[in-house]
Amino acid sequence: MKIFIINGPNLNMLSKRDETKYTSLNNDQIIDLLKKEFPGIEFASFQSNLEGELVSAIQSADENYDGIIINPGGYSHTSVAILDALEVCKIPKIEVHLSHLANREEYRQNLLTAKNTNGYISGFKENSYLAAAYLLTRIIK
Amino acid sequence: MKIFIINGPNLNMLSKRDETKYTSLNNDQIIDLLKKEFPGIEFASFQSNLEGELVSAIQSADENYDGIIINPGGYSHTSVAILDALEVCKIPKIEVHLSHLANREEYRQNLLTAKNTNGYISGFKENSYLAAAYLLTRIIK
Amino acid sequence: MKIFIINGPNLNMLSKRDETKYTSLNNDQIIDLLKKEFPGIEFASFQSNLEGELVSAIQSADENYDGIIINPGGYSHTSVAILDALEVCKIPKIEVHLSHLANREEYRQNLLTAKNTNGYISGFKENSYLAAAYLLTRIIK
Amino acid sequence: MKIFIINGPNLNMLSKRDETKYTSLNNDQIIDLLKKEFPGIEFASFQSNLEGELVSAIQSADENYDGIIINPGGYSHTSVAILDALEVCKIPKIEVHLSHLANREEYRQNLLTAKNTNGYISGFKENSYLAAAYLLTRIIK
Amino acid sequence: MKIFIINGPNLNMLSKRDETKYTSLNNDQIIDLLKKEFPGIEFASFQSNLEGELVSAIQSADENYDGIIINPGGYSHTSVAILDALEVCKIPKIEVHLSHLANREEYRQNLLTAKNTNGYISGFKENSYLAAAYLLTRIIK
Amino acid sequence: MKIFIINGPNLNMLSKRDETKYTSLNNDQIIDLLKKEFPGIEFASFQSNLEGELVSAIQSADENYDGIIINPGGYSHTSVAILDALEVCKIPKIEVHLSHLANREEYRQNLLTAKNTNGYISGFKENSYLAAAYLLTRIIK
Amino acid sequence: MKIFIINGPNLNMLSKRDETKYTSLNNDQIIDLLKKEFPGIEFASFQSNLEGELVSAIQSADENYDGIIINPGGYSHTSVAILDALEVCKIPKIEVHLSHLANREEYRQNLLTAKNTNGYISGFKENSYLAAAYLLTRIIK
Amino acid sequence: MKIFIINGPNLNMLSKRDETKYTSLNNDQIIDLLKKEFPGIEFASFQSNLEGELVSAIQSADENYDGIIINPGGYSHTSVAILDALEVCKIPKIEVHLSHLANREEYRQNLLTAKNTNGYISGFKENSYLAAAYLLTRIIK
Amino acid sequence: MKIFIINGPNLNMLSKRDETKYTSLNNDQIIDLLKKEFPGIEFASFQSNLEGELVSAIQSADENYDGIIINPGGYSHTSVAILDALEVCKIPKIEVHLSHLANREEYRQNLLTAKNTNGYISGFKENSYLAAAYLLTRIIK
Amino acid sequence: MKIFIINGPNLNMLSKRDETKYTSLNNDQIIDLLKKEFPGIEFASFQSNLEGELVSAIQSADENYDGIIINPGGYSHTSVAILDALEVCKIPKIEVHLSHLANREEYRQNLLTAKNTNGYISGFKENSYLAAAYLLTRIIK
Amino acid sequence: MKIFIINGPNLNMLSKRDETKYTSLNNDQIIDLLKKEFPGIEFASFQSNLEGELVSAIQSADENYDGIIINPGGYSHTSVAILDALEVCKIPKIEVHLSHLANREEYRQNLLTAKNTNGYISGFKENSYLAAAYLLTRIIK
Amino acid sequence: MKIFIINGPNLNMLSKRDETKYTSLNNDQIIDLLKKEFPGIEFASFQSNLEGELVSAIQSADENYDGIIINPGGYSHTSVAILDALEVCKIPKIEVHLSHLANREEYRQNLLTAKNTNGYISGFKENSYLAAAYLLTRIIK
Repeated sequence: MKIFIINGPNLNMLSKRDETKYTSLNNDQIIDLLKKEFPGIEFASFQSNLEGELVSAIQSADENYDGIIINPGGYSHTSVAILDALEVCKIPKIEVHLSHLANREEYRQNLLTAKNTNGYISGFKENSYLAAAYLLTRIIK
Repeated sequence: MKIFIINGPNLNMLSKRDETKYTSLNNDQIIDLLKKEFPGIEFASFQSNLEGELVSAIQSADENYDGIIINPGGYSHTSVAILDALEVCKIPKIEVHLSHLANREEYRQNLLTAKNTNGYISGFKENSYLAAAYLLTRIIK
Repeated sequence: MKIFIINGPNLNMLSKRDETKYTSLNNDQIIDLLKKEFPGIEFASFQSNLEGELVSAIQSADENYDGIIINPGGYSHTSVAILDALEVCKIPKIEVHLSHLANREEYRQNLLTAKNTNGYISGFKENSYLAAAYLLTRIIK
Repeated sequence: MKIFIINGPNLNMLSKRDETKYTSLNNDQIIDLLKKEFPGIEFASFQSNLEGELVSAIQSADENYDGIIINPGGYSHTSVAILDALEVCKIPKIEVHLSHLANREEYRQNLLTAKNTNGYISGFKENSYLAAAYLLTRIIK
Repeated sequence: MKIFIINGPNLNMLSKRDETKYTSLNNDQIIDLLKKEFPGIEFASFQSNLEGELVSAIQSADENYDGIIINPGGYSHTSVAILDALEVCKIPKIEVHLSHLANREEYRQNLLTAKNTNGYISGFKENSYLAAAYLLTRIIK
Repeated sequence: MKIFIINGPNLNMLSKRDETKYTSLNNDQIIDLLKKEFPGIEFASFQSNLEGELVSAIQSADENYDGIIINPGGYSHTSVAILDALEVCKIPKIEVHLSHLANREEYRQNLLTAKNTNGYISGFKENSYLAAAYLLTRIIK
Repeated sequence: MKIFIINGPNLNMLSKRDETKYTSLNNDQIIDLLKKEFPGIEFASFQSNLEGELVSAIQSADENYDGIIINPGGYSHTSVAILDALEVCKIPKIEVHLSHLANREEYRQNLLTAKNTNGYISGFKENSYLAAAYLLTRIIK
Repeated sequence: MKIFIINGPNLNMLSKRDETKYTSLNNDQIIDLLKKEFPGIEFASFQSNLEGELVSAIQSADENYDGIIINPGGYSHTSVAILDALEVCKIPKIEVHLSHLANREEYRQNLLTAKNTNGYISGFKENSYLAAAYLLTRIIK
Repeated sequence: MKIFIINGPNLNMLSKRDETKYTSLNNDQIIDLLKKEFPGIEFASFQSNLEGELVSAIQSADENYDGIIINPGGYSHTSVAILDALEVCKIPKIEVHLSHLANREEYRQNLLTAKNTNGYISGFKENSYLAAAYLLTRIIK
Repeated sequence: MKIFIINGPNLNMLSKRDETKYTSLNNDQIIDLLKKEFPGIEFASFQSNLEGELVSAIQSADENYDGIIINPGGYSHTSVAILDALEVCKIPKIEVHLSHLANREEYRQNLLTAKNTNGYISGFKENSYLAAAYLLTRIIK
Repeated sequence: MKIFIINGPNLNMLSKRDETKYTSLNNDQIIDLLKKEFPGIEFASFQSNLEGELVSAIQSADENYDGIIINPGGYSHTSVAILDALEVCKIPKIEVHLSHLANREEYRQNLLTAKNTNGYISGFKENSYLAAAYLLTRIIK
Repeated sequence: MKIFIINGPNLNMLSKRDETKYTSLNNDQIIDLLKKEFPGIEFASFQSNLEGELVSAIQSADENYDGIIINPGGYSHTSVAILDALEVCKIPKIEVHLSHLANREEYRQNLLTAKNTNGYISGFKENSYLAAAYLLTRIIK
């Protein structure tokens, strides 16, 4: 099974962000943890600060992967472009967030891009990614 | 590890609800699945259609369990009472939903009770519960 | 034909409420009037102040009755739990109100539970129930 | 007893509209059904697509009829003019709708003209008119 | 000086409306009062319950009158059509209301048609019309 | 007859304001015009930029005047204090505005203080005051 | 091919309206231009200021024409009656506007009637009609 | 004098809640304090997490007590059922809150149930109850 | 103990206001009542119709008094200036209202100034002040 | 005449999207169709998923083309950047959409970027582009 | 060059306010700092807690100063009176705030009075005033 | 001292934009002006139309500069991505705008990205940048 992890803006800066809200790991460490916990899965990852590059990454995923774990970061709440790209992409897709958006700022309450995923996980720091991988092992057969 | 599963209104009726939106299993089958997938965890479950009984169940959980998986059903969006009960309860708590609320009706978009949980999982049918159990094994050490 | 009348909070107190807005009859008198006007129908009735007991009553109706006349009272405007219970219940259901909600307070304008009924009658005092019974005789064949 | 049935815009086109939402009868057939079910009532009916003609019809009803059954169609949600005309008219008035407005589009949720009627019936197709006639036999003595 | 008085829906029914809110006079009596108080002005008047006839009346006024006193009644708050007609008409125009809209229902607070008049008078019963006539004698020279 | 003219903030600056929107006269010239047009009325006037001084002026008017013409200026839209003062004052009160508020900025659309006056005149420049005086001669007998 | 052009309120007054916003042609000149540019199409046109007459015109179009070009003018934003009439009418329908509504007043931003047309064209003055005719030649085969 | 103290959801958990926001006392200690400060009053108290049980408690109070001190907790903001029950109950009723709702979350700003009480006290911890008792000694004579 | 009572606009006019809503006492009588009921407290009082004078009074209170009872009247809902003054002032502060704001007009529902007080009492007429004094005797030790 | 076609995010994926909503053609086929129908026009086209690249494309168009046909896709509703770029660009610009936005999701109703174009066409699938080209032949002379 | 510094409510209390949010200086020290940093400018300053006195101060500035630095404090968000006074005043005007309003409470987000200034500076504590003085040296020549 | 100037979309087009609203200088001329006025500061600048490139530029600034002057242009109002990037970056940051946003369109009133800067300057054309540089000389020591 091949899983594509797509990370949006500022997720390349985890080591500088508030770890009580996000995670104490950086992106590479999260990938390493995923590989260790799910040795049977092949993980690829992509990070970009550009909304359009995330759109392109999603567009390319269909043919190359069995599933997507996506954290659109700050684009989650406003990007109709990512929402539309996710609709075109037919493999299983899970939106994850490190922090627990339900108790953050008002402008993070609108779950726009999540509408075109299979489901949504928020609030478990690096474990959000692990739970997504766990779920993909159950959804993809 | 002892986990308390709290299910809100109409979750005793899964066999009669739209299985493409919710799940093809009933409540007992979900518990059985949890026990089978997580043999090391002891699961207890409680279902009620009454908001106040759910409040009482949450209040009693602190001393008897290591974690809570809660699906407040229709009370998720308006119940300040459940929200406050969850604040009082200090063990790890995960809110789960069978269906994917982000693409359902407007009145299901307000995640009120989730604010006082560790995090939130929505959209994976019975697998939402499994992912919550998986996460509790990682959170509770 | 067996009809189940489900009355929500404070409908046990009609004799103490403003009769120009609600009705000059009490609950038993309304049932008596129904029986007198529709001798061919068997009426059962249930009243509760508890949202969850109303949910349970609706859940139990499917197998025992041919139709429901429901007045959810103050829960009509906010209860997703009753709304969901009504969706599960497949017999004809009519929501009635004694008073004319369209010219009352703003917080009574949202018709939430009514969405999952066959239709809605409001404003005719005890006659709202009679009209609902009349309609069920036409809908249920 | 003389009852005036006032139908608003597009109610002359029932045979072309979605019968699962509205009714499988046309306007004349509904009048015939009313006459058959309520042989003791004399029914007159008026249909217009013009808001102002509906206003005029309501204005003229006071002196000629004992009650009104009105379906303002698309004007129900915005017409202050019809609302004001109904206030001037002192005979019993019932607003009916073929379809169940509570689960239709947002712009059909505002019940404006209904404020100045005795009550409101919605969702029972042609039976909405029959229930209104039934109610008028009880209200008008 | 020739003044055109345009009255909207239900203003032909003043004798039946609440005189503490509107006026104790009927429309003809208001015209008579205007003629008596402003003998130097020639008054013509038009009343219609139809939005479009009011539009047509406004369209025709330009060439035949020196000024307009308009009471659009219930159309004041929603009619873009009357608003646009008033924009095309270049003679002085004053919107009047018998009742004091500022302390009536929420849906009467939006002054839409008034935007394309010279100004607005509300709350003085029949005197609203007299004040408008008085103002036109000062505006039109 | 004694009339009290109360002018709010910035109405002492008319000579510096946009005369196409307000008036080409200053405050004294408006008073002079009123005296000339209504020689039978005794006019007193008060202007203040302070909300509370306007409140005090209104409070003192009851015993000393037969009617009030008030232009609360920028306080018209937010001052509950002036609104309450006008409620206490029982003589006839007319709110006037030089400019036509209905086609100005959004924040000038809320007519708060006007609720506790007999009525409202807006848009006729200095003639708004004259029309108010004209109306008071008709209202006060 | 026979096309029915339906024009709403004030579109009979184009010669008096702001030509930089609307068009420098009048209605007849637009029809002439259409005939000249599309000699193979037979054009009929109807203008009314009355909402209900527009409803009736739409209702009658089904049997007599191959397509509709409609400009509901000020009714575009509020008329549920026209919206419903368009739903009943099954031939291709295009809503056009002379001016570019997207940069006009807030109350012109709600595209209500357009929902039940094939599509929408706004902002090209008389060319909006030409483009609609061009499109109908492609849609109707 | 007999006073009924009705406490809503989670007020049985005060010892576990944030005492800087609520109180350092538990429910029994508050009752003891009331008895000590107001020895002439007989206090009864009832706590429930169930909205409907609170409705029932209010319904029963009329005949057995001289006044009510109610803290509806999380139901204060949404419960039309409790609001209606309070309307039926004719003895003096005071709503109290331990914490100062005016500076808490947005969803605690709507004072719904308080509408049908004599008045409202919020922010003084256990002293809110004492002040309510003090007020009842003045209101009930 | 020295308590400063600060009354906002129109509270000098109580004898002219609706006593069923406010109180049958005037301001001096309320002070007298306070002195009689709380002989151990020294009361000073200040009333002003000017928002800024209320700000100044609050600013001066810190050094001269042990507590504040403030009724900001109409400024309660909009005055950021009073809100900020209250933040600067560190002695105990209680906001009181004679009438029960929770069931009055919409524009009285926003409790702005109350945010920077210890708590809020509303609806008990003159007893609101007495309850505030009672509370200050408990808060200030 | 040289026309620049600018397509936003996901318009490179037409072959994978719902053709009943969008079009059965892909982007190249639309360009081919344009060339076939308008042989006298030279068409260039640019597609990007990146908001900023679309901004840059618009910025560069002024000097190289006679007109723009732009479909900003999901950026149409939120992109102030594209809106501002269109303002700077002085050649004729037409915004087109394949689907009929007026009857799609709420978040597609705000026409932001269209404000700075000459006009707007929506709902005609590939024909939206053809109509835009047709219009440019009439606008550009 | 003569600059008039106008400070609104509570700016006389800086020494008592939270210095991490506002400034560690008091008002006199800010003036001293300005004089030291801009020795070529003559500074006058005025502080008042009264909205109307601020209006008067602005009205008087035109003739006596070359520019205004204004901090309307809590009146910034609601005062139409100050907004209008600023419009009348034709010398350069800069609105400054000590704290950074963009990340404070919702009710401080509406920049009303700033609309009639040349520009706005917020968030730099006492340096906000210095930057304003710096800007005036560049704007006033 | 090294200052990084980050300019968002369309700021490369100043020479083509309305200079009464923005500035008569282009970007290079603004940099030249900064260098001339602040010879002791080393300025670097970056402009991009791409939201993600601006995010990357902000991410890179921490290690290379002492402060940031950022003008996010059209992204200021919606970009959570830039907002988050600014939170990660710990050097002083000032948001500047050439035009005075407080009196522009509604969609430019939400100051989102500014929340994570030290402060905000708007309305002084090129002088906004100079004032920011002036402020950085005071903030960075």
